[in-house]
Amino acid sequence: MTGGFDHPWLGGLFADEAGSAIWSAGQQLAYMLAFEAAYSRALGAVGVVEAAKANKAAKLIAGFDVDIADLRVGTARDGLPVPALVAQLRAAAPDLRDAIHKGTSSQDVLDTALALTIKEMNALLAARLEALDHGLGRLIATFGSRPLMGRTRMQAAMAITVADRIAPWQTPLHDHLARLAQMRQRVERVQLGGAAGDRQEMAGKGADIARAIADDLGLCCPDRPWHAMRDGLAEYAGLLSLITGTLGKMGQDICLMAQQGVGEITVSGGGGSSAMPHKQNPILAELLVTLARFNAVQLSGMHHALIHEQERSGSAWALEWMILPQMGLTTARALSAAITLSERITAIGEPEK
Amino acid sequence: MTGGFDHPWLGGLFADEAGSAIWSAGQQLAYMLAFEAAYSRALGAVGVVEAAKANKAAKLIAGFDVDIADLRVGTARDGLPVPALVAQLRAAAPDLRDAIHKGTSSQDVLDTALALTIKEMNALLAARLEALDHGLGRLIATFGSRPLMGRTRMQAAMAITVADRIAPWQTPLHDHLARLAQMRQRVERVQLGGAAGDRQEMAGKGADIARAIADDLGLCCPDRPWHAMRDGLAEYAGLLSLITGTLGKMGQDICLMAQQGVGEITVSGGGGSSAMPHKQNPILAELLVTLARFNAVQLSGMHHALIHEQERSGSAWALEWMILPQMGLTTARALSAAITLSERITAIGEPEK
Amino acid sequence: MTGGFDHPWLGGLFADEAGSAIWSAGQQLAYMLAFEAAYSRALGAVGVVEAAKANKAAKLIAGFDVDIADLRVGTARDGLPVPALVAQLRAAAPDLRDAIHKGTSSQDVLDTALALTIKEMNALLAARLEALDHGLGRLIATFGSRPLMGRTRMQAAMAITVADRIAPWQTPLHDHLARLAQMRQRVERVQLGGAAGDRQEMAGKGADIARAIADDLGLCCPDRPWHAMRDGLAEYAGLLSLITGTLGKMGQDICLMAQQGVGEITVSGGGGSSAMPHKQNPILAELLVTLARFNAVQLSGMHHALIHEQERSGSAWALEWMILPQMGLTTARALSAAITLSERITAIGEPEK
Amino acid sequence: MTGGFDHPWLGGLFADEAGSAIWSAGQQLAYMLAFEAAYSRALGAVGVVEAAKANKAAKLIAGFDVDIADLRVGTARDGLPVPALVAQLRAAAPDLRDAIHKGTSSQDVLDTALALTIKEMNALLAARLEALDHGLGRLIATFGSRPLMGRTRMQAAMAITVADRIAPWQTPLHDHLARLAQMRQRVERVQLGGAAGDRQEMAGKGADIARAIADDLGLCCPDRPWHAMRDGLAEYAGLLSLITGTLGKMGQDICLMAQQGVGEITVSGGGGSSAMPHKQNPILAELLVTLARFNAVQLSGMHHALIHEQERSGSAWALEWMILPQMGLTTARALSAAITLSERITAIGEPEK
Repeated sequence: MTGGFDHPWLGGLFADEAGSAIWSAGQQLAYMLAFEAAYSRALGAVGVVEAAKANKAAKLIAGFDVDIADLRVGTARDGLPVPALVAQLRAAAPDLRDAIHKGTSSQDVLDTALALTIKEMNALLAARLEALDHGLGRLIATFGSRPLMGRTRMQAAMAITVADRIAPWQTPLHDHLARLAQMRQRVERVQLGGAAGDRQEMAGKGADIARAIADDLGLCCPDRPWHAMRDGLAEYAGLLSLITGTLGKMGQDICLMAQQGVGEITVSGGGGSSAMPHKQNPILAELLVTLARFNAVQLSGMHHALIHEQERSGSAWALEWMILPQMGLTTARALSAAITLSERITAIGEPEK
Repeated sequence: MTGGFDHPWLGGLFADEAGSAIWSAGQQLAYMLAFEAAYSRALGAVGVVEAAKANKAAKLIAGFDVDIADLRVGTARDGLPVPALVAQLRAAAPDLRDAIHKGTSSQDVLDTALALTIKEMNALLAARLEALDHGLGRLIATFGSRPLMGRTRMQAAMAITVADRIAPWQTPLHDHLARLAQMRQRVERVQLGGAAGDRQEMAGKGADIARAIADDLGLCCPDRPWHAMRDGLAEYAGLLSLITGTLGKMGQDICLMAQQGVGEITVSGGGGSSAMPHKQNPILAELLVTLARFNAVQLSGMHHALIHEQERSGSAWALEWMILPQMGLTTARALSAAITLSERITAIGEPEK
Repeated sequence: MTGGFDHPWLGGLFADEAGSAIWSAGQQLAYMLAFEAAYSRALGAVGVVEAAKANKAAKLIAGFDVDIADLRVGTARDGLPVPALVAQLRAAAPDLRDAIHKGTSSQDVLDTALALTIKEMNALLAARLEALDHGLGRLIATFGSRPLMGRTRMQAAMAITVADRIAPWQTPLHDHLARLAQMRQRVERVQLGGAAGDRQEMAGKGADIARAIADDLGLCCPDRPWHAMRDGLAEYAGLLSLITGTLGKMGQDICLMAQQGVGEITVSGGGGSSAMPHKQNPILAELLVTLARFNAVQLSGMHHALIHEQERSGSAWALEWMILPQMGLTTARALSAAITLSERITAIGEPEK
Repeated sequence: MTGGFDHPWLGGLFADEAGSAIWSAGQQLAYMLAFEAAYSRALGAVGVVEAAKANKAAKLIAGFDVDIADLRVGTARDGLPVPALVAQLRAAAPDLRDAIHKGTSSQDVLDTALALTIKEMNALLAARLEALDHGLGRLIATFGSRPLMGRTRMQAAMAITVADRIAPWQTPLHDHLARLAQMRQRVERVQLGGAAGDRQEMAGKGADIARAIADDLGLCCPDRPWHAMRDGLAEYAGLLSLITGTLGKMGQDICLMAQQGVGEITVSGGGGSSAMPHKQNPILAELLVTLARFNAVQLSGMHHALIHEQERSGSAWALEWMILPQMGLTTARALSAAITLSERITAIGEPEK
């Protein structure tokens, strides 16, 4: 029942298919293996191991059939899955031992895998922000000039237009796209530090290896490892919550507009009630409010995780694992719900005379 | 990857078997059906429907094989699973229609099911708080009189004893048990209100029906429906976070005590590192800190959900669904991890001379 | 502009006179001195110092004119005001040196002073919860049987009565009073631990001294010092937020009821607008929502402060200082605003036919 | 005692002089008057009122001696100070009535004043981020090549250098400066909407007036009013918390490094203890942790405030008033404390052999 995303029936409300795929365990494992393979290839490329051996290792890793049950046991023991994963890989090819994971660390694997997830997520964010922008643009084109009572402090103020009401749903989407573009290089980036974060076991080739992995995986390559600097992730969580916040405002407005006695909007496909079949509930609009408040709550945890002790904080890091994926799923769902909702609006404002 | 509880391998670290069972979707559905069956029986007991018919309906419900896929579709449409569930039940026995769900509401079903979950959880909380109390008592019995450097503001202050260090891990457990006993009647209680919360479609027998259900299910029976008063749930979430907070303090202390150069504690079974096989990481102690901070974050959301509009807030209610189960799972895991950790402590403090 | 409570004009909206007095710096200092005086008296009572000397010290302390500027300098240096305060006291009477503060600690002073503040606050909470209960009772007596449209998910559902709408504003007040009664002994309690929290410098009379101080100040006397167990304070913060949450629900309902087109309530004394003199804004109802959300946010911080390292956490403790007083002020103001608001409601629901 | 910033002695620890000046009520009022004066001038510049009259009004406003007590009464009544302020201004010059505030709104005044505060704050942020960057650079220059035990999960891992430990304190400062530069145009911007936010009472000259005010006050001029789009402010709060998070990590590291038995750092000027005069407490390092957690908590509230109903939400807006200034003060203080702390570090790491 956690979060509702994986729940057998609540998932019908909370889950978004594309978002779930991006943040799935399977995809996460694929990205972990992608890092390990890229690392092996990079070891070959920079001459730390023989190129043929490195490529052989990379090929093994890329096609590896991971024993998930063993990974679970290993995670229970070690606090993370990488030691067990590496043991599996090395057991499968003892002769490739020094071309697999040697010199890198669990954190490099998991943080770079996360960067790949975020990169994939960002494509979805951009596409959906634009889709919603167009959807709202259509509403403005159709209904924008209609009159509507402006309401301040929930009280009738002065007549405005439908376009004025919709503008605060739409305009911030442009700013969110700008924010996303500005922060991509601060989150879509390789992490490479090794055991203590200083690349000391990479034969002096750490920077070259990092660059090779970044090129291989399509990530940025920062000057330094970022394992103990979590500000990129916290900033990213902030963007997710800014997006859901804008959509939550839209949802709250629609709930208010749909009230009997106010009647400023008509939405098709409202939810039914077990006790009152006549009702048309603004399910998706309410959901946007829920998701916005959920992210607003979670964001706090991502900022607490900035207090990341020394070279690696087991406790702060695991807090990110508990929170960030949920924020990603929440944001993906909020966007799909908002797009659907914008398509279901059949009238807004009073017909012009 | 939501929260880590359901994750194929992170679950090895974050999930607790007993806790997962209590908060599972399957158990939730069982409790929803338990309410529906008890409601049917109660309709018979108070004479709203014929007793035989009521019991027949209750029997059907109790053994009903729910179509989960249909429930998911219904939840997507209606925002909650109950309309679809009731439709399934009624379709299975059209002649029992007026003995099934008639006069009650989705909220009665879901909130009473939650009360049953909480009741089950409370038994686990009580048992584990006592088990941990005993575990810490054993540590005090064995090591309590050993000297230990007292540390204030992370700086050495004056020598104390091991018992002094452990007391703040143990003493609050007693207060948590007292709190639990005091609040049970505010959370283990039937919700019965019907469509608009005033029991108006229960033929004037609302209070009797509520009492019958409460007796049937082993719940308290408050004077009024509590559908729009969520303070019991927020208070309960507070207790969960108080518990994990105490355990988080224990975890943080153990992390600090286990540092090289401090060396105040020895714990067996530490986690391994993919890069440094020699390390013994205090995985469970760190996990306690993570879980404490996670609950401290979530609690805020449960208090925002107190602002529950009018007779039912779709948005505030769904926020509870996203958060409270995770807090339950977090607390169950923190307790099991703390108990295990207490058993793995092989020495604490300096040997007495 | 911090929080608005001390702000020269925003204070007109946010501040509550009685609450401000309870949580004022002046009162805090008075309680710090009350502890120091009681401690001196207790040293005499249990025979650690000569009784006459102890009483002389207590008298000096009770009437002491503190140099606030020096206290500020000391706080900047030491992180808390007590070393500077004790130095001032001892400088005033070098001969009473060993009857002043000897064996106790900064934490004992500040935590016991806080317990006294909370005790005073609790009297205000109880009185105002009852006053609001009466105010809402009056509304039910006057308007309770009037019809009102029940609204679920912000949509018209079925007709209920005004009493049904008000019940969720009033009923939880009784539970809050019960909670307050249950937790008083967990917060209105003396803290006495000394430098490292184990009372080691109290000549073996720690328990007797604690009992004497508790009797003197009208506080409970727990079996142990609670300096590193902050669950009582976090629980108390939870109660404050439960109270404001209930009032926030009342405020949100009133905002919704006051909408044009809904028109379920009439409130006198609404706020004016600089641009639209005709408007009557539901200022106090909105304020209740603001204060509820503010406390819901702050509560999280009090639960993070449960992770209090070792015998004293400078960082977690100071976090409480930043947050708890604001929660107290918020709650005091929410209660006074709710009482005023209940008095300004001149009609609610539709006149009965 | 709110937040500690205004507290007579706790202010010695929590307050920062320059930060307090920026966020003071006096400065806020000055900026409110600056907006009103600029608005009057703009009315003249675009020809809505006669230029001479407009300038006369602007001159009156700029030098106006506000009756604060009346402002407080007005705020209690209206929920904000602007109606009372405007009444005072107009009473002082009835003949200038239509050159004062006519067509604009409370929200324009308060939000633009806030933008001016933020602009002033941003200069302080930039200067202090650079100063801290230099301070940490000096430490690296002096001690950077010294060996230090790398610690992961609070356990000794492998030797690194002091430069490796300091890098995560310093590197994010550069990213914070980049973030600040990127977001300035999204927060340092004029708000101009009028009563219902659509500039309808500005004689069709709204855009020109906004441009004139922006030029006058040195702010950006967005295409639209942003009164109901609060994402800029929430993003800004996020930056403040990112900054304090980085400093909190630095503080936590220093607390851990200063432990007896670890001894990786020497800091002069530690705080004293009332009970243990020998102690040197790492007050400023702890304070950085406190301030980071405080901001991490508050940030959540700023994101809840994104759900801003319709054309103006009284409740969400007031929540910003309660929170954002405190986040500003917290950040200003964290930066000054970190700079001081960096100057007090007299040794870090082990002397090289």
